[in-house]
Amino acid sequence: MLHPAISYAHITRVSDTLVTSTEDALAAEEPLEIRLVHSGQQQSITVTMRSPGQDEELAAGFLFTEGIITRYDAIQSILYNDNVATVTLQAGIRPTLQPAQRNFLANAGCGVCGKTELDAIFTPVAKHTSTIKVPAKILHELPQHLRQQQDVFDNTGGLHAAALFNTAGQLFFLREDIGRHNAVDKLIGVALQNKLSFSDYGLLLSGRAGFELIQKAAVAGIPLIAAVGAPSSMAVKMAKEWGITLIGFLREGRFNIYHGEEKIAF
Amino acid sequence: MLHPAISYAHITRVSDTLVTSTEDALAAEEPLEIRLVHSGQQQSITVTMRSPGQDEELAAGFLFTEGIITRYDAIQSILYNDNVATVTLQAGIRPTLQPAQRNFLANAGCGVCGKTELDAIFTPVAKHTSTIKVPAKILHELPQHLRQQQDVFDNTGGLHAAALFNTAGQLFFLREDIGRHNAVDKLIGVALQNKLSFSDYGLLLSGRAGFELIQKAAVAGIPLIAAVGAPSSMAVKMAKEWGITLIGFLREGRFNIYHGEEKIAF
Repeated sequence: MLHPAISYAHITRVSDTLVTSTEDALAAEEPLEIRLVHSGQQQSITVTMRSPGQDEELAAGFLFTEGIITRYDAIQSILYNDNVATVTLQAGIRPTLQPAQRNFLANAGCGVCGKTELDAIFTPVAKHTSTIKVPAKILHELPQHLRQQQDVFDNTGGLHAAALFNTAGQLFFLREDIGRHNAVDKLIGVALQNKLSFSDYGLLLSGRAGFELIQKAAVAGIPLIAAVGAPSSMAVKMAKEWGITLIGFLREGRFNIYHGEEKIAF
Repeated sequence: MLHPAISYAHITRVSDTLVTSTEDALAAEEPLEIRLVHSGQQQSITVTMRSPGQDEELAAGFLFTEGIITRYDAIQSILYNDNVATVTLQAGIRPTLQPAQRNFLANAGCGVCGKTELDAIFTPVAKHTSTIKVPAKILHELPQHLRQQQDVFDNTGGLHAAALFNTAGQLFFLREDIGRHNAVDKLIGVALQNKLSFSDYGLLLSGRAGFELIQKAAVAGIPLIAAVGAPSSMAVKMAKEWGITLIGFLREGRFNIYHGEEKIAF
């Protein structure tokens, strides 16, 4: 089966003793441009290097987690064609392009570049409440579930995965991408489409947890994040600020809680 | 010793049988704003989430690999203060802010968003020639050298590393960062400061090799890239386009050559 996120190449495989020619699977990487149509105008929002596939989800998730739209039903249609996803908003909906967009904006030709520039990395996060409580035993089992369902990684060794999980340890909507932020945007995009209530789920990440991923989860209202890899200092700081339970190094029968023990049942 | 790229936090460590409170090292992550002063004006160029430290190198490397400046001596001074690096160009030097900057630009409010938007991910790459030839035996030894010198990773499990190596397998200017593109920009920044001739060196990457890293190496004129992780399809495509030897999965006594066997000696 041809998978859009897998590409093939002729390679030379070298070991200490052997040199062979073979065909190998690669993680496909292509640029996606996200365009926004609103109030009678069309605007290019970003270009991201991503794994092809589920591009409508990626576009919807990106606009939501960056605070450009605040609900999925702000979207009238999403058309994908040739590495461009065009998102048309419902009549009367105005996107919030400042300051959220500064997060991934470079060309702010500003006269007064003050502290505001650094503050602009933050997307507004609404207060959410959740009474979710996940048994430690369930958390220990998550990496194995994730790995079993991560079909592209096994082929290419090159993808990040993200999934939602409930308190019984079931995974929902696992998404993979060459960029970890894209995997999370695809996941949140498909969860929005399916009207999932984020406050009932945890976010499982196959790798490290940095600031950007914590922020995307916070914008969606996800109360708990469990990463197989390490969190950064900024991830821990913002998890505390936003009241998110943050777990790292979830592997081999152990994990670390960086914030929010009250959502774990021992 | 306090390392700027390491931060500490109180955590709860959970295993199948034990719950303990302890202090743990985290990879520090903070935003860096890069500002450019030229022709009597000051402009904010980008904000990147990075590991603090070596920020002057990061700023210089970023401006160079994104094609905004073409030589290190275009820079008159770099001042770092409180997560802002201000780069002042020499009198008469004009930065190239289009289209290279589009690569990391989001707010291109364009009326005619055509194919040009997707093409804008490319920074101009000059043709370089190199007669470098690296013995396979030397390549096999590189990951071990890298790991031995990667001091922050051992503490936090959270950093990417990049280094230059010569045909004898010696590593130069190893740099680590929470963002793999930042590690490469810091490395290229310090190599520029030291007037290294990039055509005599290979680039060693601790993780995966995606499009952005190949492009940064290509702009610098590095003829060979060896990654411990997987390359992407776009990385392989551009390595062929730019004549760069690309090696992936360099570990455990083996590697794959995706392009450019002529620079490897068996």
